[in-house]
Amino acid sequence: MENGSAAKKRWGFQGNPELHAASEITIRGVLTMLLSKLNQSDTRPVIPLGHGDPSAFPCFRTSPIAEDAIADAIRSAKFNGYSSTVGIAPARSAVAKYLSQDLPDKLSADDVFLTVGCTQAIQTIITVLADSKANILLPKPGFPYYEAVCQSCHLEARHFDLLPDKDWEVDLDAVEALADENTVAMVIINPGNPCGNVFTHQHLQKVAETARKLGILVISDEVYDHLAFGKNPFVPMGVFGSITPVVTLGSISKRWIVPGWRLGWLVINDPNGIIKEHGIIESITGYLNISCDPPTFIQGAVPDILGKTNEDFFSKIVNIIKECANTCYEGIQDVHGIICPSKPEGSMFVMVKLDPSVFDDIKDDMEFCVKLAKEESVLILPGITVGLKNWLRVTFAIEPAYLEDGIERLKAFCKRHSKKT
Amino acid sequence: MENGSAAKKRWGFQGNPELHAASEITIRGVLTMLLSKLNQSDTRPVIPLGHGDPSAFPCFRTSPIAEDAIADAIRSAKFNGYSSTVGIAPARSAVAKYLSQDLPDKLSADDVFLTVGCTQAIQTIITVLADSKANILLPKPGFPYYEAVCQSCHLEARHFDLLPDKDWEVDLDAVEALADENTVAMVIINPGNPCGNVFTHQHLQKVAETARKLGILVISDEVYDHLAFGKNPFVPMGVFGSITPVVTLGSISKRWIVPGWRLGWLVINDPNGIIKEHGIIESITGYLNISCDPPTFIQGAVPDILGKTNEDFFSKIVNIIKECANTCYEGIQDVHGIICPSKPEGSMFVMVKLDPSVFDDIKDDMEFCVKLAKEESVLILPGITVGLKNWLRVTFAIEPAYLEDGIERLKAFCKRHSKKT
Repeated sequence: MENGSAAKKRWGFQGNPELHAASEITIRGVLTMLLSKLNQSDTRPVIPLGHGDPSAFPCFRTSPIAEDAIADAIRSAKFNGYSSTVGIAPARSAVAKYLSQDLPDKLSADDVFLTVGCTQAIQTIITVLADSKANILLPKPGFPYYEAVCQSCHLEARHFDLLPDKDWEVDLDAVEALADENTVAMVIINPGNPCGNVFTHQHLQKVAETARKLGILVISDEVYDHLAFGKNPFVPMGVFGSITPVVTLGSISKRWIVPGWRLGWLVINDPNGIIKEHGIIESITGYLNISCDPPTFIQGAVPDILGKTNEDFFSKIVNIIKECANTCYEGIQDVHGIICPSKPEGSMFVMVKLDPSVFDDIKDDMEFCVKLAKEESVLILPGITVGLKNWLRVTFAIEPAYLEDGIERLKAFCKRHSKKT
Repeated sequence: MENGSAAKKRWGFQGNPELHAASEITIRGVLTMLLSKLNQSDTRPVIPLGHGDPSAFPCFRTSPIAEDAIADAIRSAKFNGYSSTVGIAPARSAVAKYLSQDLPDKLSADDVFLTVGCTQAIQTIITVLADSKANILLPKPGFPYYEAVCQSCHLEARHFDLLPDKDWEVDLDAVEALADENTVAMVIINPGNPCGNVFTHQHLQKVAETARKLGILVISDEVYDHLAFGKNPFVPMGVFGSITPVVTLGSISKRWIVPGWRLGWLVINDPNGIIKEHGIIESITGYLNISCDPPTFIQGAVPDILGKTNEDFFSKIVNIIKECANTCYEGIQDVHGIICPSKPEGSMFVMVKLDPSVFDDIKDDMEFCVKLAKEESVLILPGITVGLKNWLRVTFAIEPAYLEDGIERLKAFCKRHSKKT
């Protein structure tokens, strides 16, 4: 080819390697790698205990109300045009009304910014806060998309522990020790991904008071809001917005089991007007002006989705997930080499501890997950992906029969690889 | 309030002012400003000649095939989950097949990346090419979203002229003079926004040869593809992918009149594999891994939307737009102080030249547009927004009766403000 080596020297463009690096630390990257390890000759179904998307299972099908709302919006032909970059007014109002049900200080439509799923809400607030000197405090274990976005916009991430012996509460002493004059915010995820915990009202208040003392924002990722089924009810962090400013991130992805619909929000809980005073609102608007919008007809469906979905649907879903959490917790008790420190009470995940010393030929969580995928067609996320080496993040929100099958395979796998003593 | 001045000192966060600045140079920003100037007591309808979104008018309603495709995808419950970050395979294949109809080198699904509208496609390729030393060549007049994204990711933009006396062709001498060893790409928009021109086969070939000589990519923004109704047929730049690598950006927004559906694509036309060799594909994938995805059910509808929409719908739309273009061109001939150098033959816009010297009290295009909005409830984009001071960008793609009304008001406005000699 005449375009060979001469062309290589002459073309003046190249990709930006930073983008590749930032994206490699995401959960999707690791799950894609594990998928490539599956044994194609295994005729058993693949058991996906790796990601928080049970939408493919019939028992997790979304509400017909939500489907109707989308179909009606499309048929109306009212939502084919561009939306405002912050979201159309009826949808912003509907989110404000929906979230205000659980808040002492009612939200207005202006407090709500619609985003392409919760991920764009994360991207927006991280980009807005990024500054060459700034740092942000993230939970460990956590959701690595935060780290990927921080890396891509050069915001320094520092990590505080969640404490497995204290129901995965935030180590607030660590938060105080980590923060300095350049700390801008701390992130919490409640109900917890990856830990499956639900913070108490009392603990959230302490989080707010610590943030107030440090002069930082609390970013509360509530994408699993209302998926709580243990002793602690779900309490939105916005309840404490008068103690410290709170930016709440959420979406319809998990509660309605429609992660592929990509409709999320970023909400300002700030009755004292501190966030506005500090130019955050202008920056959010500015960022959204040059970013993607959720499709207008999905926004058009939001008032019906949020306003008309009945309690029966929600309780059905929560009951299935609760049952799955029990099945998973009980099942893991019998698995050699894995310990579950606390019974999951929210979200779709639980963190369990791996003891590699009991195995013959497995040195760590990554090798465990690769071999498990290869030998048993079971996908589990290695804890290193979410910040905890030699732990595993197990998704229990899948069709119950599959979950039971997956745990049996996990048990057999661990038994087979155990040291013979 | 006890949170007053003490709090102002203590809170450690602030917005990023760069985001606000980058977003101010967009068309949406200027149109929002003009909207705020409207006289609320004017009972006549507002005539929107400022933006390329005719979806609100009944004669521009999208095809029922497209509506059905979305409704069917939602009802199937097959597309509620997360998609791959580059797009689901059937949708990528459908776009490859659709575009390959007009190309000598057939595309594969792997050449196609699905994006949240064409804007995310722009954002992706600009971010991928950004580098501290790099520069990119943009057309003047152009589409200011390119400048906004370049600014936000610190990619230097340099401008070449489009030549009004040569049917708005690219000034290729200027391109050669502007390029240096750090130039990575040049952008063309065809059919032309804002000029309403359609490049000839011969001119596109010269663009490719110039880019080859300079060792740069051609980014071809074809969001108005097939909206051509003059002497030149629409020719995709990908036809010349074997001369120089071409990245084509497109969407269903304009041809199907559904800009609010936010489904676009970035496509690699590179039969010699040069783009891949230079790491661009990894960077695109990396960027999309940490960015937003188009909703999965919209992707699920793509095969039907692209494969089943019949020619009648397309020709109906093009005929209406052609008629509007004629009405606009003829009408402007009679408007004092405005000259139209060439009859529009594509897209939804035409650039017309303003002669402020004929007016009593209008010093430039911005003042013209502000007063026109205030006095006549007609919205037109000042040329300065797209890079040409004392020109105007007029959208003719609106319901014909509104267009005629708008041109009458424009005529009356110009007459009223003309110097009495």
